[in-house]
Amino acid sequence: MQGTTAQDLKKGPLEGITVLDFSRVLAGPFCTMVLADLGARVIKIEKFGTGDDTRAFGPFVADESAYFMCFNRGKESIVLDIKSPRDRELLERLLDRADIVVENFRPGVMERLGYGAERLAKTHPHIVYASISGFGHTGPFSDLPGYDMVVQAMGGVMSLTGWPDGPPSRVGTSFGDLGAALFATVGILSALYKRVQNAQGTRVDIGMLDCQAALMETALARYDVEGKVPGRTGDSHPSLAPFESFAAKDGRFIIAAGNDTLFMLMADALGSPALALDPRFMTNDMRCSNRPAMITAIETITTREPIEHWVAKLNEAGVPCSPINTIDKLFDHPQLKARNMIVKVKGQGDRYIRTAGNPIRIVGYADNDVETPAVSPGLNQHREAILNELMAGHGAYSNAASDDTASTGVDASSSLPRAAE
Amino acid sequence: MQGTTAQDLKKGPLEGITVLDFSRVLAGPFCTMVLADLGARVIKIEKFGTGDDTRAFGPFVADESAYFMCFNRGKESIVLDIKSPRDRELLERLLDRADIVVENFRPGVMERLGYGAERLAKTHPHIVYASISGFGHTGPFSDLPGYDMVVQAMGGVMSLTGWPDGPPSRVGTSFGDLGAALFATVGILSALYKRVQNAQGTRVDIGMLDCQAALMETALARYDVEGKVPGRTGDSHPSLAPFESFAAKDGRFIIAAGNDTLFMLMADALGSPALALDPRFMTNDMRCSNRPAMITAIETITTREPIEHWVAKLNEAGVPCSPINTIDKLFDHPQLKARNMIVKVKGQGDRYIRTAGNPIRIVGYADNDVETPAVSPGLNQHREAILNELMAGHGAYSNAASDDTASTGVDASSSLPRAAE
Repeated sequence: MQGTTAQDLKKGPLEGITVLDFSRVLAGPFCTMVLADLGARVIKIEKFGTGDDTRAFGPFVADESAYFMCFNRGKESIVLDIKSPRDRELLERLLDRADIVVENFRPGVMERLGYGAERLAKTHPHIVYASISGFGHTGPFSDLPGYDMVVQAMGGVMSLTGWPDGPPSRVGTSFGDLGAALFATVGILSALYKRVQNAQGTRVDIGMLDCQAALMETALARYDVEGKVPGRTGDSHPSLAPFESFAAKDGRFIIAAGNDTLFMLMADALGSPALALDPRFMTNDMRCSNRPAMITAIETITTREPIEHWVAKLNEAGVPCSPINTIDKLFDHPQLKARNMIVKVKGQGDRYIRTAGNPIRIVGYADNDVETPAVSPGLNQHREAILNELMAGHGAYSNAASDDTASTGVDASSSLPRAAE
Repeated sequence: MQGTTAQDLKKGPLEGITVLDFSRVLAGPFCTMVLADLGARVIKIEKFGTGDDTRAFGPFVADESAYFMCFNRGKESIVLDIKSPRDRELLERLLDRADIVVENFRPGVMERLGYGAERLAKTHPHIVYASISGFGHTGPFSDLPGYDMVVQAMGGVMSLTGWPDGPPSRVGTSFGDLGAALFATVGILSALYKRVQNAQGTRVDIGMLDCQAALMETALARYDVEGKVPGRTGDSHPSLAPFESFAAKDGRFIIAAGNDTLFMLMADALGSPALALDPRFMTNDMRCSNRPAMITAIETITTREPIEHWVAKLNEAGVPCSPINTIDKLFDHPQLKARNMIVKVKGQGDRYIRTAGNPIRIVGYADNDVETPAVSPGLNQHREAILNELMAGHGAYSNAASDDTASTGVDASSSLPRAAE
């Protein structure tokens, strides 16, 4: 960043890009949050009355949903009544100006509303149109509802998560939604890059189940080669040792010393160099075979002192290790603080919540602002501003738009979601 | 895809982009695999002798690593001896032609080799330079080694994964590496998009720990608002019910019916409409409070028939549900098959392995080829071809390059990794 002053720093590389965001709940909003974090303008199209379902999800901060705040910071909100001709006209004008459309309805819903990908490819061929759904828009499952829990079960990750002698466990975060959101973002940006060359938008179709399969690492190949169904390994790595948790005096912590050099350094750091000379533990293969004996030998030592002691010793020796942090430990974590990873978000009230910020650091662009809370929009908060903006740009549209402003608040007879589902 | 013939279909939107890939093991190679899947040319710079460490990771197919194959399909390989002036010259010429550099060494390693981001920003300002490391290139932890297991423990996901009465579990796939790989890909593509406008590359700095925090969904906000440390919830959602597994006659399966309408549809599909009228189960909140009773009531019914029976019934009724699939079930899964998600990869021998393909479907680009195996490169396989290509393009360089070809195979005295670490 030499020669760059704070004033030069732009919000992000996507400044100038406009996203029309029809999505709600998690996978779509997480995708557009990442785009917003990178500088894009995200206009959230919300349904009449309640808006994004998560506005009703707890926990609440003075009647505003903290769930909603987490994923909608920095976005704008407009409520559109898809049955009103004037709101449809308004939406056409927004589409004229949009670069990206994101939606996560079940296949068919956007088509029934009149905003399916094929129609927009004709009227608005410049748009990169991304759909995220449980199973994608083709194939025999495409009409089925695919929640996070469903694709975690169907895609295999539950069968790999938990302890071998216990039942399958879900990943403690919505891995199904978040994985799909990130692959969607990658697809959108690759299409946006291409658009610069051929001036053409395209259609990105993301199935959450496909993304789960893509994130199974080597599990499919292992089954294909060895014919053995991969199982759960608790907190250890299936083919590295030590690479798991060990008991200290005051709890458990991780040592990840999966090669012989690291194992030697670990033995030294634990004050027991003899461990590395024990014939049972000389190679990773032997440590894997003699894992129970290895654990006993290590824990005989580690249980004598608290986690903090061992983590300091092992870090000093360059041996990968960590306490098993609970979520409260993240707020004051020295590394996350130094990386400006904990940010503030507020709704329409004054009280802010803290959550994780953008993990993508790009030289030349502003780091996360950890002081000023980002604002998540009130329902329909930006309608007026958006209308004014469209009027300024399109004289012919200005009358319709102002009529529209007057009428829509009253016409509650129909709404985006009701028309949709 | 109207009007598009098979011949028109390009490999992907990143065709024409060249990636120099210094990375090894998982996070970096997964990132560059995604770029390759989208059409980029990826040239893997490997260390003398052994190459990418994962070439030695099992399982093996006729002496070739299936682990390596999974993440290096479709890439090219060249071994460079960073201590040889001629290989350094060759690398400069490759950098002249590269659009993207990806590396996942510990901070400082690329600098010591002479290919740090600051140096390249001066000599090759067009390059988008991405680093993936455990903790990123700034902050007090930046020098520490950060393996997947370490950041899963440090970043909180282990504390959320597993059963409430059991120990923390790791996510059954390398969530720490894969999450960072996807955020890195997003950062790279956003910078590549920007480069089209300002003709400038930049530096993307990804810390695996930051990415873990960014993937904790609402867990930080929940703690911040409620002051209660979020814990493990086994296979259920913390605030939706039913959203978990239930026992059938022959095993467990998932029902995700977290709203009242779905619960009613579920009750009907189970042949017990009375369930939805039970005062204990009328709302999601009440079902969460009376979860044990709800589970008993549901399992009284579900244990009478096998999983297949219930999944068919519930699917028919539009209630989200799934068997808990083990990995072997993915190969013939009708939806994954229809989406061309299971692909073949081979090394230098004839035998192929099967793994998951690219989950990003983009209209106008070829779908995954499920018949022809993609090829993962042999160590240094593409050296000659790359040299010929550089010679053809740069007359002045041709002599040095051919000398170089002759000498490098012999000079085993140093290598990229040894110089590096």
